[in-house]
Amino acid sequence: MNSNNASPAPPAKADKASVRRHNLSLVLRTVHDEGEATRAGVAARVGLTRAAVSSLVDQLLTEGFLSEWGKTFSGQAGRPGTVLKVARSGPAGLGVEINIDYVAVCVVDLAGTDRVRLVERMDNRGAAPATVLNQAARIAARAVASATEQELRPVAAELALPGLVSGGTVRQAPNLGWNRVPVEGLFAQALSTLRPEHRALPVSADNEANLAAMAELWFATADDDRTPVNSFVYLTGEIGVGGALVLNGQLLRGAHGFAGEIGHLVVDPDGPPCSCGARGCLEQYAGQAALLRAAGLDEKAGAAGVAELEARARAGRPRALQALEEAGRRLGRVLSGAVNLLDPDAVILGGSFRELKPWLAPAADAELTARVVSGLWTPGNGRLRASSSSGDAARGAAAHVVREVLADPAAYAEPGKD
Amino acid sequence: MNSNNASPAPPAKADKASVRRHNLSLVLRTVHDEGEATRAGVAARVGLTRAAVSSLVDQLLTEGFLSEWGKTFSGQAGRPGTVLKVARSGPAGLGVEINIDYVAVCVVDLAGTDRVRLVERMDNRGAAPATVLNQAARIAARAVASATEQELRPVAAELALPGLVSGGTVRQAPNLGWNRVPVEGLFAQALSTLRPEHRALPVSADNEANLAAMAELWFATADDDRTPVNSFVYLTGEIGVGGALVLNGQLLRGAHGFAGEIGHLVVDPDGPPCSCGARGCLEQYAGQAALLRAAGLDEKAGAAGVAELEARARAGRPRALQALEEAGRRLGRVLSGAVNLLDPDAVILGGSFRELKPWLAPAADAELTARVVSGLWTPGNGRLRASSSSGDAARGAAAHVVREVLADPAAYAEPGKD
Repeated sequence: MNSNNASPAPPAKADKASVRRHNLSLVLRTVHDEGEATRAGVAARVGLTRAAVSSLVDQLLTEGFLSEWGKTFSGQAGRPGTVLKVARSGPAGLGVEINIDYVAVCVVDLAGTDRVRLVERMDNRGAAPATVLNQAARIAARAVASATEQELRPVAAELALPGLVSGGTVRQAPNLGWNRVPVEGLFAQALSTLRPEHRALPVSADNEANLAAMAELWFATADDDRTPVNSFVYLTGEIGVGGALVLNGQLLRGAHGFAGEIGHLVVDPDGPPCSCGARGCLEQYAGQAALLRAAGLDEKAGAAGVAELEARARAGRPRALQALEEAGRRLGRVLSGAVNLLDPDAVILGGSFRELKPWLAPAADAELTARVVSGLWTPGNGRLRASSSSGDAARGAAAHVVREVLADPAAYAEPGKD
Repeated sequence: MNSNNASPAPPAKADKASVRRHNLSLVLRTVHDEGEATRAGVAARVGLTRAAVSSLVDQLLTEGFLSEWGKTFSGQAGRPGTVLKVARSGPAGLGVEINIDYVAVCVVDLAGTDRVRLVERMDNRGAAPATVLNQAARIAARAVASATEQELRPVAAELALPGLVSGGTVRQAPNLGWNRVPVEGLFAQALSTLRPEHRALPVSADNEANLAAMAELWFATADDDRTPVNSFVYLTGEIGVGGALVLNGQLLRGAHGFAGEIGHLVVDPDGPPCSCGARGCLEQYAGQAALLRAAGLDEKAGAAGVAELEARARAGRPRALQALEEAGRRLGRVLSGAVNLLDPDAVILGGSFRELKPWLAPAADAELTARVVSGLWTPGNGRLRASSSSGDAARGAAAHVVREVLADPAAYAEPGKD
């Protein structure tokens, strides 16, 4: 993860307790971002005294946020320092992605590592929201049990959903057929029924493309050794086409929390009706159903269908290639609009677009080259990328919880400790 | 103007001189943002001692950034305070908009008031850049002379141009026919030839839609008593269709400085060729030439043509109404994409779209209502606005200079003074 180390200055008019709380986070984030550090190294980095840092580190050790790993010799004069790392047991994040044809649950530790991952295929279209959320809670409870065996303690759950989410409610998820579903409350209820000891677990919810984009931002460089990009358009190709915008390292949420809906940009105003109520949206040309149908496959075949499409494309079968080329062209046109508007560093293809990129990209790249007005898009310039292997909405959701912990560890100290 | 008052904390590792420099700006911006203030009021607001504020105010008075305006009685105990305002003479900003069929120059004082304005119609298409910039410098020199009579002292010039601008160069301005024109250098040269005393005047350049959007952000609320909007898509309809994005009160520049090019979003991939090299861009449907042509007017008639179109629409002439309705529909489709991507508070129509809004808006609003996926766009909800009467690129450019002065007055103190 590459969180920004804020300056050591506390917020204005801070009292002593809130200054300490702020500095606990500062020290924890510094160790997190450096991977490992000594007390002296942290002190030098954050501009606090060595004594102050030692006291903060002691509290973070006691409360289980940091752990000590032997001695290091700096090569400089002075005593060797003890190496500090973020704890690999203790506080963790629980991420639950509820998508149209699967549920994925993941538990991430403070270092950002995916420690538990459970994925179940299921068709959630048209199912009652409570049923789906109960099922998701059941999978989550299994993940938590497995995390507990690894001495991890999920401190909050974050849900990822393919729709417009605000205030704990799915305002609308057309492909699930959900409207105004209070997902946070329903999931918390379901989980506490299954595991009463989790009655107090805070639950929050966000759009799945937003969380996948954050996972990309936080993990892509470390995992895949790529050039980091701080500004990008992120696209997920599942049954729906979701999107998210990351600008200067920040997710753009918009005035109401609904930014990034690239799947509903117009390809053809008179095109086929879309689940959103309009016509000719990108999703009707590049969503899974459209892709599979154009390739002569069963449009409801889901992930198995995408795998078959990929196999046919790899085998050079013309109808598959043509379907992907045509979808790539439409994708490229819509993306050229997003690039002309936002001038990002990169466009990142996630979800099933990731696997299909070799066949989507050439036509998309050609459209981008023809239409990006700055002239700064050239074929194969590396700005149209597949998402990293490890970033997905479930991990992004779990990592989001971890980042909340890093931002204010005192709020997540284990009850009874300290 | 509604600049943010930064916290009084100076940047890390500041020495005494840079702390004072920072605090000079803090005091000046506080008086600017409040409109008027006493020394005691400033001290309370910024969290510095009264003595420190008095010393800073004295310097700002001596150097001509502030002026004193009699006494105020606060109603509280203690001596009456002297009212401080930003100076209405002295440092000022010079803004020069070079557009396709006119040049507009304006001088803005520290309070943001437009004190000099000169506009000349001229056809700059295909003219040699040096000729156009010489002509603009001649108008600017007249504006400076007029500002000098009002005891204003322009401290820098900002150019506004209809094209992609970076590093002092117009990379490309298709409607002017300019490519890689070093506008900052050419303008500075032309101005210093006309007025050798301005040889040292700093010159910078930006995209005209960016500067018009900033003028909208800075002036619309104060001038037109509107609900302030902090996140908006700004469109200028001139010969080209320019755009800019303001998100959370900040202009989005993009990774290379070329964000906001909404005029080149695709309406129809097989549509008419555009000056940018692609086909079917919005500009080919909603730019002045397209509008005039569709209404049966001379497509090269420029501002006079737009006035005639407006008169015909007002008179209810069917061809004019139909042309505007059709353009409004295309505008609405493209804007729905921008709104689905960015979820702004508002979309603001500037340039000639401002006058034509009554006839463009109904069809655009209908498309937005049908296509904005959040369901939060409803007809006539006030989110599709005409730009304010006083925001334009020339004023935005001049005000940009003023904001640089407010951010670091010490850098603009008159040589010889202090």
